[in-house]
Amino acid sequence: MPAEGYNVGCYLIDRLVEAGCGHLFGVPGDYNLRFLDDVMAAEDFQWVGCANELNAAYSADGYARIRRIGALLTTYGVGELSAVNGVAGAYAEMNPVIHIVGGPAQKDQNAHSMMHHTLGDGLFHHFGLMSEQISCSTAYLRELHYARDIDKVIQDVLFEKRPGYIVLPLDVATAPAEPPLAPLLRRPYELSDVSCRQLAEAVDEKLRNAKRPAALVGYHCDRFLCQEGAQRLVDDAHIPFAHMLLGKGTLNEQSPNYIGCYYGATSPDNLRTTVEDADVCILVGVRFHDFGTGYFTQKLDQNRKIEIKPHSVTIGSKHYQQIPMAKALEIVREVALKYADSWPTVHTKPERIREPTSEKFSAYHFWREMQAGLQPNDILVVDQGTSSSATAGLVMPEHTNVIVQCLWGSIGYSIPAAFGAQMAAPDRRVILVVGDGSAQLTVQEWGTFLRHDLRSMIFLVNNDGYVIERVIHGWNAEYNDIAAWNWCPLIKALSTTVQPDTQIVNEPGVALAALKSTAATARSSASTR
Amino acid sequence: MPAEGYNVGCYLIDRLVEAGCGHLFGVPGDYNLRFLDDVMAAEDFQWVGCANELNAAYSADGYARIRRIGALLTTYGVGELSAVNGVAGAYAEMNPVIHIVGGPAQKDQNAHSMMHHTLGDGLFHHFGLMSEQISCSTAYLRELHYARDIDKVIQDVLFEKRPGYIVLPLDVATAPAEPPLAPLLRRPYELSDVSCRQLAEAVDEKLRNAKRPAALVGYHCDRFLCQEGAQRLVDDAHIPFAHMLLGKGTLNEQSPNYIGCYYGATSPDNLRTTVEDADVCILVGVRFHDFGTGYFTQKLDQNRKIEIKPHSVTIGSKHYQQIPMAKALEIVREVALKYADSWPTVHTKPERIREPTSEKFSAYHFWREMQAGLQPNDILVVDQGTSSSATAGLVMPEHTNVIVQCLWGSIGYSIPAAFGAQMAAPDRRVILVVGDGSAQLTVQEWGTFLRHDLRSMIFLVNNDGYVIERVIHGWNAEYNDIAAWNWCPLIKALSTTVQPDTQIVNEPGVALAALKSTAATARSSASTR
Repeated sequence: MPAEGYNVGCYLIDRLVEAGCGHLFGVPGDYNLRFLDDVMAAEDFQWVGCANELNAAYSADGYARIRRIGALLTTYGVGELSAVNGVAGAYAEMNPVIHIVGGPAQKDQNAHSMMHHTLGDGLFHHFGLMSEQISCSTAYLRELHYARDIDKVIQDVLFEKRPGYIVLPLDVATAPAEPPLAPLLRRPYELSDVSCRQLAEAVDEKLRNAKRPAALVGYHCDRFLCQEGAQRLVDDAHIPFAHMLLGKGTLNEQSPNYIGCYYGATSPDNLRTTVEDADVCILVGVRFHDFGTGYFTQKLDQNRKIEIKPHSVTIGSKHYQQIPMAKALEIVREVALKYADSWPTVHTKPERIREPTSEKFSAYHFWREMQAGLQPNDILVVDQGTSSSATAGLVMPEHTNVIVQCLWGSIGYSIPAAFGAQMAAPDRRVILVVGDGSAQLTVQEWGTFLRHDLRSMIFLVNNDGYVIERVIHGWNAEYNDIAAWNWCPLIKALSTTVQPDTQIVNEPGVALAALKSTAATARSSASTR
Repeated sequence: MPAEGYNVGCYLIDRLVEAGCGHLFGVPGDYNLRFLDDVMAAEDFQWVGCANELNAAYSADGYARIRRIGALLTTYGVGELSAVNGVAGAYAEMNPVIHIVGGPAQKDQNAHSMMHHTLGDGLFHHFGLMSEQISCSTAYLRELHYARDIDKVIQDVLFEKRPGYIVLPLDVATAPAEPPLAPLLRRPYELSDVSCRQLAEAVDEKLRNAKRPAALVGYHCDRFLCQEGAQRLVDDAHIPFAHMLLGKGTLNEQSPNYIGCYYGATSPDNLRTTVEDADVCILVGVRFHDFGTGYFTQKLDQNRKIEIKPHSVTIGSKHYQQIPMAKALEIVREVALKYADSWPTVHTKPERIREPTSEKFSAYHFWREMQAGLQPNDILVVDQGTSSSATAGLVMPEHTNVIVQCLWGSIGYSIPAAFGAQMAAPDRRVILVVGDGSAQLTVQEWGTFLRHDLRSMIFLVNNDGYVIERVIHGWNAEYNDIAAWNWCPLIKALSTTVQPDTQIVNEPGVALAALKSTAATARSSASTR
């Protein structure tokens, strides 16, 4: 029930809940406090205060990767701009996050008053223009059109899988409103029967003579929720498939058809040749980016590709428009089944993580133990850097999620993202691996885990600076050093009530023991080595 | 000396040093590492790595408030967007900060490659468009025009006292270049003799019959470096003057003519009537904003005002253009001296901070002790909220600076800003007052004080949440609560080598003792109450 009668804020909340949002991440500010009263009063909608706005944006992104929609509340200017890096990451990696900004009252905007949290020039359009660059849809709410505008942004976000931006002036938030009169309409994806028929013919021509097809699966397959259709295709037609790092964990890596993670020239040889020498390679939601391909070293003949994209398919130089990915997967599968009997049924196995060369505890030990300790249903979150690179070599158990922001690649993302993912799935185990360099950017959100008494497991890889950058340039350069922190006491100090189990992991076996025994029931744990 | 021959990066560094920058704040990223090699090799130019980019931007802003120019280095996309809130604050409050962004190589941009730290659409203009909203000048450096473009941005920044934005693609940074052939030209402010004569006449007409003039001094007086001219005006003509909060500490508050801080209807009565009932009120660089005026409750008759602005003067409805503030102050002073003999020489004294009503330690105790403990040359930094409001009541010793971001008002600003101010003035005492709510946003930069073993004094006002917001709305609302941290152990854990003196301030006398005895020599100190 709203605090003071049904208003525009209530309408927005109702539509967010209808779209699947159960939580609102953010930081209060005087321009959003009255809307927050309605949030607190709402059913099935929980306010989650974060330590700062960037962290809140990352949290909403992590949440959206699990719940498929997320929401973020900031205040005008200072709050929203702190969040834009997180929102831009959601745009780049296609996570639907709705960014709501509490704005100054309309009369102050109309009078061009010099309000706090503005540039002091009496203009109120600056920050909206900035957010338009990183949003698929924007609205500046007014009393007259609130329903149309709110619905439009949420529809666009659900359709495009990108962030949307809504400015809610404080007096508009409290303006009287009517509850939604009908369910939120969903924008349908365009579907052409003609195009589908032409595609089926073209795929048939490709696969008819294929002897060794393969498939590559990327993040668009996950974002457009086509995991099932893609899984059916590769499993029913026993097509060997690899994940891209940008899409890692989308399909079931326990499938006999899974051959590992493809990242161009330095991929394991068996995997690389299976993909690159395939006479037809089916790309499902794949996009090649520098970090995921060893700087574009992928070698795939354009004439051997069937590229299934979110709304179209490309074969050779021909584009088949108006075919949603789910439909395209069905079409390709139907054709594939005609010829699959003649295709190999046994494929190369994913390469295992390299055996450590010495007994001294190293990253090889750690990641082999991680591999052994992962369980079905886990959510693995890794920060960008050496951790994300190592993740390519893992073979995930069933029904797991991997969260790695390897296109946008904003270090520090993983701590709040893991928090958001844990809020989205309180009954699943969230395991986070983050380096000390990354962790310093967003460390305060570790306290928010403790505030909510979450049982996540956090591995802090204390390798003394920005190691991924040392690898790229400046191994000994001072600019890759960071402040030396005392991590275990620090983490314990982030709560006065809940004490995390902290443990130093500096010899073989400790990480695995933690993962196997205490992990599923441990409170937020800090492990450093 | 540059690492590998003189290049575009070296040219940029040389011009920054010439403009007064001794330090570069920021966070390394792979797109800026090669430029950083040149930074490390440069003389008189020091790299200052921060824990994250927002903090680095705040630090550069705090530094620029003392050194009158600051510089910030981030990486493309993820880094620069994390910094935009800090840069926007520098824009709003007019602090000249040059934001340098290491960008992808030109060939990758020209090929529309899907690079990391991009939105994945092959376009590289998005973030520049965002920064254009909060920059007075922008440049996308190319080898051909590097000198022209670098000079232009720095000139504009020095002229406008606003941030500038420079994208330095990694291959442009290392492209061969020539050192500057001539000193950096400075853009002169326009000056019209005709306008000056007309102004002198108009001022004469105003002041001729004045019996009780007064002056208000705001932040533009500080930003355009007109403190001396304004001080001469009020002191030589013994005109009573008040500061705006947005400009607090600009002139000498030990002057017999200082009457306190004016903030509209709730200002102390004597001060308010001196300002509002003056028959002529000279405004020096004043702009009225909501937070500094009790939401626009100032009462100043337009016909009694002489408004001295950065580049013009307004009297009544007439504007005198093309007169820089320094020149306008001279003109007004010359006229004032003709009539000053007939004006009062003794003025109301600034009101003292209220006596505490009980012996139980309270904010009144704290701020009275702060008043008693402040020393000449101190730099006082306060965060937005209850601390900034309290600062209005202080009477600052001579040669002090007050840093309070009360127009932009981004909570968390003060910790990194104090760090930047201390880097700018290592021999001065920096005193910071920040609430626990604000501190949680940017706490990691407290570790950077320790990393540099700085002797700043930090008061952490541990009042359990966002108290300024409770005052505005939602006194008991859950959304104004924050995670409860254990502050003293937390701060100690932010360094493995330097241990700060921490002390709990929870009874009268402790803060003053700290300020009087140990303060000037103490290492970074945490005091909570």
